[in-house]
Amino acid sequence: MKIDIREANGTDLDHGLLETLSSLAHVGLTSEKAREIFRARLRTGARTYVAVADGRIIGTVSLLIEQKFIHGGGLVGHIEDVAVHGSHQNQGIASNLVRHAIAEARQQGCYKVVLGCYDSLAPFYERLGFRRHDVGMRLDLNTCYNTTGAAG
Amino acid sequence: MKIDIREANGTDLDHGLLETLSSLAHVGLTSEKAREIFRARLRTGARTYVAVADGRIIGTVSLLIEQKFIHGGGLVGHIEDVAVHGSHQNQGIASNLVRHAIAEARQQGCYKVVLGCYDSLAPFYERLGFRRHDVGMRLDLNTCYNTTGAAG
Repeated sequence: MKIDIREANGTDLDHGLLETLSSLAHVGLTSEKAREIFRARLRTGARTYVAVADGRIIGTVSLLIEQKFIHGGGLVGHIEDVAVHGSHQNQGIASNLVRHAIAEARQQGCYKVVLGCYDSLAPFYERLGFRRHDVGMRLDLNTCYNTTGAAG
Repeated sequence: MKIDIREANGTDLDHGLLETLSSLAHVGLTSEKAREIFRARLRTGARTYVAVADGRIIGTVSLLIEQKFIHGGGLVGHIEDVAVHGSHQNQGIASNLVRHAIAEARQQGCYKVVLGCYDSLAPFYERLGFRRHDVGMRLDLNTCYNTTGAAG
């Protein structure tokens, strides 16, 4: 099966993108609200990439580009929300998505790419060239939104 | 000494902000280039906060707001580049800067705030309410820019 990886567009939301992300954590968005978020993310420079098979979205990865003052105004790529649809696990799709995000970060001129992952996933990212660098700290804020308790 | 914490403006760049950041890593920016970066960061929604004493910038913290599709389009605050000028270390300024960034993230409606730090700094962030959550992974990309080798 041929799998393409490309930047997401608005129509992908209804063709498996939100369903794919729901393997990661609760999504809970109407199509309309998802489109609004898609546009808001574009405005802030957040990039969404998708893996496509037979016209369906079966995987995704996000890349945020941060411009720093330090390192001569250097750019940092933050990889977020790597997800593969349950029907396509263990086919190397997540690796290809992360490689694609790294290539995009390189093309944008990033001097590093960073991400946070559970300890059990560190070997996966090490095989893609990452190294353990620091500790990911998290503070949950009290909001009205009910999370599923999943990571993300 | 009275210390104010507020959002940065363009004139702060020449009043100690870049000098403060150089305690973290090499900066290497002209004033003109720094202003350009300041505007670019505003466009992508990156917020810079500063601690001010006697009209000089003596501390800074950055907050990136990421809008996700998961968690109902939830917002995540990423804290970056906490720095205090060498002349004002160990006066609680870093704590106050991080608390300020957390309050801003809360006000924006973020459901969590995350950051990466060296293991030795984890207790500092734990005192501010953070918990160790995951592993920060890093991939250095080959660019022409010469870093100082410092973290960041």
